[in-house]
Amino acid sequence: MAKGKGRILSIQSHVAYGYVGGKAAVFPLQCLGYDVDVVNTVNFSNHSGYGRFGGPRASADELNQIFSIMEQNELLRPDRLLTGYVPGAEATAAVTALAKKLREHNPELIYLLDPVLGDSGRLYVAPEVVPIYRDALPLATIITPNWFEVEVLTEVKMTDAASLRKALWTLHEKYRVPHVVISSIPLKSWLTDLLPAHLRPPTTSDVDYLACIASSQSDGVSSVHAKCFPCLPGYFSGVGDLFSALVLAHFDEANIEGQASGETPLSYAASQAVSKTHAILSLTHEAASALPEDERQATDEELDAREPMRKIKRMRGRELRLIQGQDIIRGTQPIDYKKLEPWAGFWTV
Amino acid sequence: MAKGKGRILSIQSHVAYGYVGGKAAVFPLQCLGYDVDVVNTVNFSNHSGYGRFGGPRASADELNQIFSIMEQNELLRPDRLLTGYVPGAEATAAVTALAKKLREHNPELIYLLDPVLGDSGRLYVAPEVVPIYRDALPLATIITPNWFEVEVLTEVKMTDAASLRKALWTLHEKYRVPHVVISSIPLKSWLTDLLPAHLRPPTTSDVDYLACIASSQSDGVSSVHAKCFPCLPGYFSGVGDLFSALVLAHFDEANIEGQASGETPLSYAASQAVSKTHAILSLTHEAASALPEDERQATDEELDAREPMRKIKRMRGRELRLIQGQDIIRGTQPIDYKKLEPWAGFWTV
Repeated sequence: MAKGKGRILSIQSHVAYGYVGGKAAVFPLQCLGYDVDVVNTVNFSNHSGYGRFGGPRASADELNQIFSIMEQNELLRPDRLLTGYVPGAEATAAVTALAKKLREHNPELIYLLDPVLGDSGRLYVAPEVVPIYRDALPLATIITPNWFEVEVLTEVKMTDAASLRKALWTLHEKYRVPHVVISSIPLKSWLTDLLPAHLRPPTTSDVDYLACIASSQSDGVSSVHAKCFPCLPGYFSGVGDLFSALVLAHFDEANIEGQASGETPLSYAASQAVSKTHAILSLTHEAASALPEDERQATDEELDAREPMRKIKRMRGRELRLIQGQDIIRGTQPIDYKKLEPWAGFWTV
Repeated sequence: MAKGKGRILSIQSHVAYGYVGGKAAVFPLQCLGYDVDVVNTVNFSNHSGYGRFGGPRASADELNQIFSIMEQNELLRPDRLLTGYVPGAEATAAVTALAKKLREHNPELIYLLDPVLGDSGRLYVAPEVVPIYRDALPLATIITPNWFEVEVLTEVKMTDAASLRKALWTLHEKYRVPHVVISSIPLKSWLTDLLPAHLRPPTTSDVDYLACIASSQSDGVSSVHAKCFPCLPGYFSGVGDLFSALVLAHFDEANIEGQASGETPLSYAASQAVSKTHAILSLTHEAASALPEDERQATDEELDAREPMRKIKRMRGRELRLIQGQDIIRGTQPIDYKKLEPWAGFWTV
């Protein structure tokens, strides 16, 4: 069991009920041996996907007050930094200013920036937040955008080999991010065709697949890895927050022991994160499927609008089974290892 | 490993750095298999013992907003309730009103009320908070006051057998609390003399001892158990919060399997809590002792006042090693079991 892996400062949302933001990230990091300093950017009742939610948001001033006292007390010396959802442009700027200070103070800081901007083509945040995130990118060690966040940040729509390369190139070269994990990108035909044969999912399958792509450009070494995995039906909240926490927890440039051949520190971390996240999702899907029918009714915008509890019950039933799956997170329960494989010739072919 | 023990609503303080309040309670409860809904009554940088601290306090209105939305969303149905530090009288009254509602809605609710009022003769809270706690006592299943909080709540100074009995009687009979655990009470000579011989610590020891006393009066059955344990030098913060969480986690009236002979649901829970808390404290003490001298200078009010960092570094060094000791909490690392023993004739001798 991990005994003291170091200290992570996690800055993201808090919800009383359920598992998104810090509630999806902190417990896994603690289980994996990290001391986690937890700054809550909001204190909500539940996540916004329920439709009805509320509670106070931290202002930029309140965040700065907490950071400032921690700094004065010499409590602001994390080995790693994890940032997720921050409400509004001013608070986002405050978090970015802190990241800048921590980076200047400690060049070895491992900063995982999860640019929580939106999903599936829809922006969650005000448009003025986007340039603040772009400014923050050069501070990051690792970023974990979903496909939509890649497109928003790079202003490149990914539709073919050239645009996928251009988007990744933009993140690495223009924004100087050494490690990028695109947490999930739908496996449309252009992407399937592009993948080397050994990375493609079985053609006989009739379920949708997603790909996770991990790309490193650091110290002159470039590598791209990928893995396809089946998409579970319906929407689960907090998955990206859990995934990012697991990438950060398992990323270790100094210690490559235990990494199988062909793995890099990033691909190893992403493989662990994909494997554990998928196992937790499977557990969650299974538990949700066993609920009474009235708590697992499919999305129907019209019916959901007429009867808010219909959606709320669905959301409640689909909260991540993080507690029940803690042995998965800890690595003491065997799961299928979804190893990201090298994507040879990604940049050149 | 525990798979889904139920749902606990925890309402207490949050600190970004270190382990007090919710940061000392929630992770242990999660490790022990509970889903924990977490309402933060304050969001501070660090605990107040550092001298310098800050961050927003939740107002009664903000707490009520969160409770109200959770209720509307049918997310307010915990099996257990844990309340700790709440800032100020209005917010305390809001939490008490919630406890009342939950108790009315679910007579089976297991409510552990930790009356965080003060320690070692000093009140932490405004005096007007005390009567609100007294009003809340009849709602509780278990309370876990320290000796000072017992005295404040009951207005009985404990100095001999009669006053100890009167204090406990007041909690059970006047305030109708079925289960009381006095988490720690210094073993002064009157208490040592009062204890049955088999419960006394070794007379050869030159360290100070504390006693934990667990008293149940429910369903017409009365039992008192106790255990003495050596006091570790210096002050550690968050110990009471960890202890209360462990009592709640291990309290199970339905399942007495695994409880040794002479144990009751309360004495079993208190034994587990004393044992694990003491083991975590020993680990913390050991780690703190190994720090550079400048981070572990003894309390000296004059020097501490002149040089705030002197105290701050001491506090930082004495934060609970909860993450490093998580196998103790989980019960997978063997520790000395400090079993509370029956105190026969407590009420009559």
